[in-house]
Amino acid sequence: MPEAAKSDLFVGVDLGGTKILAGVFTPQLKLLQTAKLSTKSSRGFDPVVERVARCVRDAVDEADMSVKQVRAVGVGAPGAVDPESGEVIFAPNLQWKDAPLKKELEQLLEIPVFVENDCNACTLGVHEVELKGKPRNMLGLFLGTGIGGGLILEGKLYRGFSGTAGEIGHMVLQVGGPKCGCGNNGCFEALASRTALFREIQQRVKDGEKTVLTEMLGAELDDLKSGDLRKAIRKGDKLVEKVLESAAEFTGIAVANLINVFNPEVIVLGGGVIDALEDELMAIIVETALDYAMPGTTKGVEIIASELGDNAGITGAAVLAKQRFK
Amino acid sequence: MPEAAKSDLFVGVDLGGTKILAGVFTPQLKLLQTAKLSTKSSRGFDPVVERVARCVRDAVDEADMSVKQVRAVGVGAPGAVDPESGEVIFAPNLQWKDAPLKKELEQLLEIPVFVENDCNACTLGVHEVELKGKPRNMLGLFLGTGIGGGLILEGKLYRGFSGTAGEIGHMVLQVGGPKCGCGNNGCFEALASRTALFREIQQRVKDGEKTVLTEMLGAELDDLKSGDLRKAIRKGDKLVEKVLESAAEFTGIAVANLINVFNPEVIVLGGGVIDALEDELMAIIVETALDYAMPGTTKGVEIIASELGDNAGITGAAVLAKQRFK
Repeated sequence: MPEAAKSDLFVGVDLGGTKILAGVFTPQLKLLQTAKLSTKSSRGFDPVVERVARCVRDAVDEADMSVKQVRAVGVGAPGAVDPESGEVIFAPNLQWKDAPLKKELEQLLEIPVFVENDCNACTLGVHEVELKGKPRNMLGLFLGTGIGGGLILEGKLYRGFSGTAGEIGHMVLQVGGPKCGCGNNGCFEALASRTALFREIQQRVKDGEKTVLTEMLGAELDDLKSGDLRKAIRKGDKLVEKVLESAAEFTGIAVANLINVFNPEVIVLGGGVIDALEDELMAIIVETALDYAMPGTTKGVEIIASELGDNAGITGAAVLAKQRFK
Repeated sequence: MPEAAKSDLFVGVDLGGTKILAGVFTPQLKLLQTAKLSTKSSRGFDPVVERVARCVRDAVDEADMSVKQVRAVGVGAPGAVDPESGEVIFAPNLQWKDAPLKKELEQLLEIPVFVENDCNACTLGVHEVELKGKPRNMLGLFLGTGIGGGLILEGKLYRGFSGTAGEIGHMVLQVGGPKCGCGNNGCFEALASRTALFREIQQRVKDGEKTVLTEMLGAELDDLKSGDLRKAIRKGDKLVEKVLESAAEFTGIAVANLINVFNPEVIVLGGGVIDALEDELMAIIVETALDYAMPGTTKGVEIIASELGDNAGITGAAVLAKQRFK
């Protein structure tokens, strides 16, 4: 590695409700090493920030580098963020409100820190690294425990009037549909997130439908994971197939809505659900989206699954650090 | 009027499926005079373009000006438009496909002509003239026979990858809901356009529900207009009240979806349905939107009805002419 790069590293942090992932990147945004810690959010703000700092140091150490060689740290946080002050305004999964993440982390690390919403960070990562910054207008859609999104418009991250743009999970697709965590009914998140999938499967099992999942995990399905659904499908499980098909159709309709409204060039899907079930979901998502979008709006439009997988968040956070540090 | 302005006029044309409206504007975008002709779309492309030219000349003549004083003409057309070539790619209401509107109209008028989608033009008009260009991010939503929209993002009209952005009327709000003209089910347009309102009222009358509308217009309700609904409401008509309330709620949910996704500063509603029924609809639309939007996304956000009324289209087309002519 050339000498200049050695003192020009960027660290990207994906701060989630259950785990912290940190990655060390070269100035060309090549990933060198990662480190992972559990979040332990129940311990409160200060202990979590200390764990983020530790995770950054661990990742740098894994890469045989020194924290002094790091120019800036980017953090993707799960909630509403003020990107100027670096405060996390509201993050229900961490039980944070008006949490001065940038300030505290800069004190601990003595490196500039930049904070962004996690889905915005993932979208940046996909746009800049996976797609080489090419699409002028792109939409990132991330299906995990919840559903979130990010928008690249005219080549730049679009944040909206007060920085909350991209709450795609709370687009209502079915007025009067299933209850969502936000209090409304029929949100995209209540129809196609991991939470929605698992709830639907558990309800159907309670109602007496049969699935191999109960043989695999017991009647309560307590420790259900996205990967189990993949295994069940491969065993020919009809219940899981139906539930996934329905979620994929709702996702396709959400994509069509966004194509109709935005006419983006590329729509990238990611997140734990897509990472685990890409083969089962993507064909139905694409077919439904093309079916529901208005004629003419999909010409040349690509609907793809991200290849960054679990690294989308750290990659995007590193992009953020590099962009904002300049 | 100062001498300079006399030879610096702009004409805006609102080309609709049933009527052509043209307005003569000063360089400061003050409306001087208008003229109106029926479209007669059944006569075909060339005769309609000739009528547009005639309508432009009539408006200029009404203002006691000469066509030589007009710098540029803007046209808002009801369909997909290529703003560079000025072709109307597809306009079902006019039965046009790949129609070279700019080229033909420039030959007839010998003035530069610029063409834009009608909802984009209306949005430009509201943004530049009614709101003095102030909001950085704004959304225009127009409820008439159909439903369309336009987006101002970071201060400029946003057209998307292939120019089709803003097809808000075909955002699905209720999977499996009523059939839409586009072939899908449950589109916003199928739930809250004038067409949807009238269809719902006529269906309920067929099903035996009572309304003063049948006393006003006969059992078939053949010549129903938005204004009749206002009259019925003011007579205490419960059926019309219920139908309007439902449409206003769907509109509020659509607005909330767009706030969640875009986080605009201002959302402006317009079009024939809003112009005729503002008092009956707006309070419910605003209340529902604030209820459905995610916490934090509506801080400082305004949801208002346009005051431009029927002149939004010609105003926006004149803005377009002025912006593009420069």
